[in-house]
Amino acid sequence: MQYVHDFHTADGSARDLLGGKGAGLAEMTHLGLPVPEGFTVSTSACRRYLAREAAPPGMWEAIMEGIHRLETRTGRHLSGSVGAPLLVSVRSGAKYSMPGMMDTVLNLGMNDSVREALSRWSGSERFSWDAYRRFIQTYGKVVLHIPGQAFEDILTEIRVDRAVSDDSQLSANDLEQVTSAFRAVVAERADDRIPADPEAQLRQAVDAVFDSWNSDRAVAYRRLHQISNDLGTAANVQMMVFGDLGDDSGTGVCFTRDPATGEKIPYGDYLPNAQGEDVVAGIRNTLSLDDLGKRHPAAHAQLVKVMSTLENHYRDMCDIEFTIERDKLWVLQTRIGKRTAQAAIRMATEMVEEGMLDRSEAVLRVDPASLEQLLHPRISPKLDVAPAVVGVGASPGAAKGSVVFDAETAVERTEQGLDVILVRWETTPDDILGMAASKGILTSHGGKTSHAAVVARGMGIPAVTGTAGIDVDEKRRTFVVGGATVDEGDIITIDGASGAVYIGDLPLEEPAETPELHLLLGWADRYRRLGVWANADTGAEATIARERGAEGIGLARTEHMFMGDRIDIVRRVILSEDAQRKAALEELKSLQVTDFVELLEAMDGMVVVVRLLDPPLHEFLPDRWDLEEKRVEALAAGQDVAEIETMMATVAKWEETNPMLGLRGVRLGLIIPDIYRMQAQAALEAVAKRREAGGRPRLEIMVPLVSTTEELHRVRAVVQEEMDMAPGTADGSSEVLIGTMIETPRAALIAADIAQEADFFSFGTNDLTQMTFGLSRDDAEASFLGTYVEEGIIASNPFESIDIAGVGALVEQATEAGKSANPRLQVGICGEHGGDPASIRFFHQAGLDYVSTSPHRVPTARLAAAQAALGESTSDASV
Amino acid sequence: MQYVHDFHTADGSARDLLGGKGAGLAEMTHLGLPVPEGFTVSTSACRRYLAREAAPPGMWEAIMEGIHRLETRTGRHLSGSVGAPLLVSVRSGAKYSMPGMMDTVLNLGMNDSVREALSRWSGSERFSWDAYRRFIQTYGKVVLHIPGQAFEDILTEIRVDRAVSDDSQLSANDLEQVTSAFRAVVAERADDRIPADPEAQLRQAVDAVFDSWNSDRAVAYRRLHQISNDLGTAANVQMMVFGDLGDDSGTGVCFTRDPATGEKIPYGDYLPNAQGEDVVAGIRNTLSLDDLGKRHPAAHAQLVKVMSTLENHYRDMCDIEFTIERDKLWVLQTRIGKRTAQAAIRMATEMVEEGMLDRSEAVLRVDPASLEQLLHPRISPKLDVAPAVVGVGASPGAAKGSVVFDAETAVERTEQGLDVILVRWETTPDDILGMAASKGILTSHGGKTSHAAVVARGMGIPAVTGTAGIDVDEKRRTFVVGGATVDEGDIITIDGASGAVYIGDLPLEEPAETPELHLLLGWADRYRRLGVWANADTGAEATIARERGAEGIGLARTEHMFMGDRIDIVRRVILSEDAQRKAALEELKSLQVTDFVELLEAMDGMVVVVRLLDPPLHEFLPDRWDLEEKRVEALAAGQDVAEIETMMATVAKWEETNPMLGLRGVRLGLIIPDIYRMQAQAALEAVAKRREAGGRPRLEIMVPLVSTTEELHRVRAVVQEEMDMAPGTADGSSEVLIGTMIETPRAALIAADIAQEADFFSFGTNDLTQMTFGLSRDDAEASFLGTYVEEGIIASNPFESIDIAGVGALVEQATEAGKSANPRLQVGICGEHGGDPASIRFFHQAGLDYVSTSPHRVPTARLAAAQAALGESTSDASV
Repeated sequence: MQYVHDFHTADGSARDLLGGKGAGLAEMTHLGLPVPEGFTVSTSACRRYLAREAAPPGMWEAIMEGIHRLETRTGRHLSGSVGAPLLVSVRSGAKYSMPGMMDTVLNLGMNDSVREALSRWSGSERFSWDAYRRFIQTYGKVVLHIPGQAFEDILTEIRVDRAVSDDSQLSANDLEQVTSAFRAVVAERADDRIPADPEAQLRQAVDAVFDSWNSDRAVAYRRLHQISNDLGTAANVQMMVFGDLGDDSGTGVCFTRDPATGEKIPYGDYLPNAQGEDVVAGIRNTLSLDDLGKRHPAAHAQLVKVMSTLENHYRDMCDIEFTIERDKLWVLQTRIGKRTAQAAIRMATEMVEEGMLDRSEAVLRVDPASLEQLLHPRISPKLDVAPAVVGVGASPGAAKGSVVFDAETAVERTEQGLDVILVRWETTPDDILGMAASKGILTSHGGKTSHAAVVARGMGIPAVTGTAGIDVDEKRRTFVVGGATVDEGDIITIDGASGAVYIGDLPLEEPAETPELHLLLGWADRYRRLGVWANADTGAEATIARERGAEGIGLARTEHMFMGDRIDIVRRVILSEDAQRKAALEELKSLQVTDFVELLEAMDGMVVVVRLLDPPLHEFLPDRWDLEEKRVEALAAGQDVAEIETMMATVAKWEETNPMLGLRGVRLGLIIPDIYRMQAQAALEAVAKRREAGGRPRLEIMVPLVSTTEELHRVRAVVQEEMDMAPGTADGSSEVLIGTMIETPRAALIAADIAQEADFFSFGTNDLTQMTFGLSRDDAEASFLGTYVEEGIIASNPFESIDIAGVGALVEQATEAGKSANPRLQVGICGEHGGDPASIRFFHQAGLDYVSTSPHRVPTARLAAAQAALGESTSDASV
Repeated sequence: MQYVHDFHTADGSARDLLGGKGAGLAEMTHLGLPVPEGFTVSTSACRRYLAREAAPPGMWEAIMEGIHRLETRTGRHLSGSVGAPLLVSVRSGAKYSMPGMMDTVLNLGMNDSVREALSRWSGSERFSWDAYRRFIQTYGKVVLHIPGQAFEDILTEIRVDRAVSDDSQLSANDLEQVTSAFRAVVAERADDRIPADPEAQLRQAVDAVFDSWNSDRAVAYRRLHQISNDLGTAANVQMMVFGDLGDDSGTGVCFTRDPATGEKIPYGDYLPNAQGEDVVAGIRNTLSLDDLGKRHPAAHAQLVKVMSTLENHYRDMCDIEFTIERDKLWVLQTRIGKRTAQAAIRMATEMVEEGMLDRSEAVLRVDPASLEQLLHPRISPKLDVAPAVVGVGASPGAAKGSVVFDAETAVERTEQGLDVILVRWETTPDDILGMAASKGILTSHGGKTSHAAVVARGMGIPAVTGTAGIDVDEKRRTFVVGGATVDEGDIITIDGASGAVYIGDLPLEEPAETPELHLLLGWADRYRRLGVWANADTGAEATIARERGAEGIGLARTEHMFMGDRIDIVRRVILSEDAQRKAALEELKSLQVTDFVELLEAMDGMVVVVRLLDPPLHEFLPDRWDLEEKRVEALAAGQDVAEIETMMATVAKWEETNPMLGLRGVRLGLIIPDIYRMQAQAALEAVAKRREAGGRPRLEIMVPLVSTTEELHRVRAVVQEEMDMAPGTADGSSEVLIGTMIETPRAALIAADIAQEADFFSFGTNDLTQMTFGLSRDDAEASFLGTYVEEGIIASNPFESIDIAGVGALVEQATEAGKSANPRLQVGICGEHGGDPASIRFFHQAGLDYVSTSPHRVPTARLAAAQAALGESTSDASV
């Protein structure tokens, strides 16, 4: 068994065996780049070590052979007291990058006599002490598990004492003193001393790297990210090179293209007379690559060539760490560089033009989720302002405006030309017009499915909800955050993606709709198998959706059409009887016809799925506590309260303990059948009108909250009855399909049976997730869900990315059973997950026909769907 | 294809082909009993008829051959005008008895000349007209679909006019007039006349019987009871015999044993000079079998012999319809007779003694559900009083007492020696002591899982909840039902099984704990594979459970231990912080230790599964509307309301939109870990105490509402930590198992994973049903669930009998996956379904290890579990 792999002979693609870092070093060595000599102790050595709780036979011998090769090649010697001593770094490097695992041990091989040799070799007493303290510091942290702060405190103290801002201003004497203090820390806080013998150091450092695989943090991280515990980590042992030998030395990081814009111009930062971690610390200002060229023309030219070699080799923008030691360039690490969304798109499309990538590769290069930030205004990422408070990012995009506390004022001030942010405890159906008029919404209550969140997302208005840190006093027209009071008219800025709320007027950046994006999405459309539809409740929303590439409307929520100024009619339907009720229903119907005509017109020739009424009726009634407030006020004023009390009794009658699981959806449709009948009539009348106008309406009707086949059977019969009577739907050409949401676990479990009555399924993964977990999203996000995610009790918020093991199992089995039972069955998904890339990959694999998402996430979904399709035939191509 | 089966040659066991009725008639004919001649047109004829929409070739010819055989054997002739004319009855008879299908056509063959012949043959003009009107009446209803009321009205009218109470007092003339009136009804209401030709009558009657298979009511009934639409019905054609030829004739029903007590004494009712339906109508008083013996000694002796023959043949108590025509006995039908629970048990055990049955057959003979009525007092079934109102039967048993409206008064009056019924809008944790003191509970709100229902069932106290028909005014200390007002102190009687509420003092019957029951349950225990455990929260409940045969406690709900006078401590835990909270927790702990010691003592040597706290904390806080009432009162009185308002704000903070899906169960245990830790400590201390006292405590700890493996993993770690520190649990002999409820669909879906962390699963099928259907039981039972069951949208209430297609699929797959992943995994169920026989059969088949149910349902569960095990190896043995 070979446990040690020299950079010269290792397989640079063997990330499993060598880890990401080791593979990269080997690959660069093969490319002839100036990589300091070294070798990788493999992950298989680690696995053996962990299983035996000791180094496997032969490992140590192989490591020492590696060291001897290093000595031969470099002419330096571990413990060498003549010429240059050999110092090495020891670093962990697993297949997947894992924060929470160990860091690096630097300058290993150091001891008192080696320091002296180093002082002689470098000609710098100061450098030798600095190297010594770096060794003790990193060895202390990584091998002896002493908290880093103990060392930082000593450095801070001496900087203050010497009145300097920067370690480079400390003298040799100072650093000798620091080294002594570090030794004292080790003596005091660790059981073991640091051995003087370099071999013993190396042995302990490699053991520490391997042990770090099972540290609590690493185990927790892997549990969370579903990384197998069996992989193990590699350990990389590499000759040290020094950027801190004087002004002819330095260290830096560079990118082969600009990671912010994507422009094909190398970008980098260089810090003279420094080691790698000094760049990260960011104390001194760095120099640009141009400056580097002026200081070290030869090394700069070589670096430019290295960049080109690496980009051509990896066919992607690379992030490179390098050191210049006395004018000589050394390359220490490379990996694929991080970039902004805008840069990713530009690079991907330009690399296709350059012939470096084909189109499918370009499509795989861009993170679909990043497109969302592109299509909303955003707070400039260069601003470094701390938010006053952070709530739930409920509807993406940034917005600013003057604060108002009710819908009427929102409308008034908007008409006066002001931008307003509507701030509420929580919004209600009464607020609809005010919400539509506002630039953004901020609420102190409710989560990502609260009224404010759902309506705002539908309207494409930024919203922050569930902001527990603000105290809204709607009566006094103020809210308090921290200790500060914000009055009506004050300007605030909100970020509906992150949930951040700022007091004051922050500059916003407009969305960058680049031609590259359209190009890339066009390519994506040719690869994807999943249809991408949108959720839209109005013609205006549908128009935006269509512009962004939606191929249909997968969910038109009719309840949103019941709100705003129509709520009085809805209340008459609920509260009155017989003739009055009938009249109110007729009134609603004619309004719904208009709604549906607008939707069908906007999507002419494409499918519009109208969902029949879903929410419980009490959502359309006033709040009982608001009524109580009015009642108490009226009592105090000596007024009659009989009417208020009657309304309160009615509201109480409709209240439910668990409204999500109560009288809503199809249950309401069967108990009060007039409502569904009216909606079916309205939808069919709209179809007839559109046809008269020469349009090509394609209506589908969807039944919510089905949990028994019989429910769907009965609603289907009602709709069919109306269809048989409707003009213009009698001919076969205009068939209206009838389908159901699959949003109760039971519907998923009996899908084969339900499919007999359904033309299509649409997974309502929001409710399906709530019911499968037994988790009310609003309640959970307001209380424990954050803690659950932070503490790793669940890997991620299952309302953002679908829970594959639980909810996903239901989606898979229902899709398969439904399609087997009814081969013509169309299957889609219209929950929030329809816009989440990881979920879209799953839906693709599960065999769905389409996803439907909010208009703003349509581009994300198009790209994600293409990647899902390409992912099936492509292996993991990342470095 | 043979479509017609003569009673003499038909296979009496071929219920599929002949229907239940036809098979019985054939069997009795083979036994040599005096059955009127006849034949059965088979279900296969019906199926062909329905498929072709016409009689299959040869069927009609075969029927007419059957008629000719009848004529030959009886010497009577259809349309015969000389001697006795042949009249026949035509009756449907499917494999399964189906209410909602057609009834019987009597006296078929009748027309004007036949009536005259009949008059001559019988010597009674009156009889002939009565026979004629019966023919028109039954033919009109069954073949022509005229509502029966049209005929009843005419009879009522003439009885009033003639001032007689009974049709037998009508004269020949009167009946001739009735016959004319019936004819007029037919002429007016039916498209077709009644043909005079007996063959045409027969053809139409057989067609009508076959068509009735597809009547709306029959289809709906089959859909509801999952009976295949493909079975079809048979039609039985049989010579008429007449019990209404005078005082030497009559008709009756008898049972081979007493169906009320089970005593081995024949029991029967006989009505002289009457036809079958007159007995059912119950207008005249019937005679006993002894009286029959005096009137017809020979026929009586023959009947006694018939009874003995049939009982020995069917090896069960038979229900027999017979007619005596001019002193000659005819047997018209037999079937297995219905009986009371008490009778069923006595018969089954005595038949074993008699050597008629073996023990396993006896165990299969008793309906397990019927045992429940035996173990509670009940309102005498002989009483015929209409209830004032019917609510939800929430906890079985009958109770009576004087009405009180609050818990304090309940306690006071009980101490004064009164029996009280506590009447509340809904009960709260504050009411616990008052509930325990009461004989019964009546609430206007809440369903079968309301606080009142759950607590009452646990305490074994009868309760009626969700009684929408009463209006409780707790302040005025009255409730209104119908128009009547019931004041505090008035006596009412409630039936917690049926939900009936009576104003006044009804006599109650005490439960009959017979030695036969113990004998039978002892036999049952030897056949069952499923363990039967009980749900019990106190030592007293556990003692009852053990007496009734429970083999362990499958669910001890610790939250019930937090109620009553302990609620103040619980509120201190919720509302205070740090030291105060710690003190409150310590106080609770020492109380819990006592609770657990009592439970472990009562169940010494058997397992007690303690479930950690489940409900959301706001259940322990006061109601916000109650506080508001106090606040308004205090305001009016000019008092300070700051404290009340603070409490209201706290309550509001803890309120949830969907508390069932909120911060409860393991979520609470992880967010506020002190509570679970305290409970684990208390349970372990109790184990130590019991061991010190020489007991054999077997504790298991159960975690509620788990939906991710990590949740269980973390609670397990906490309990394990406490176990490692607890005295007396360190030795292997006293292992405390740790398991989880499976009550979220997700837990069921990822059961293989969860099983790695669990020693046992216990299905919480109440919550699992709620989440799988997306149905809040309390909300649904208060609004739409009743309508759903009545209208057949669901076959039955899934909270009473498990939904096999949906919830059952989860139970099955979780059991299989869990046991595969962890072969030592114990799997039980502790939801309400644990006491439902149909559900128990399913749990047996699904491979569970035990069911746990309320103490009162333990005998039911023992019997049902035995039947499930026996059912696997026994075919359907019913007649």
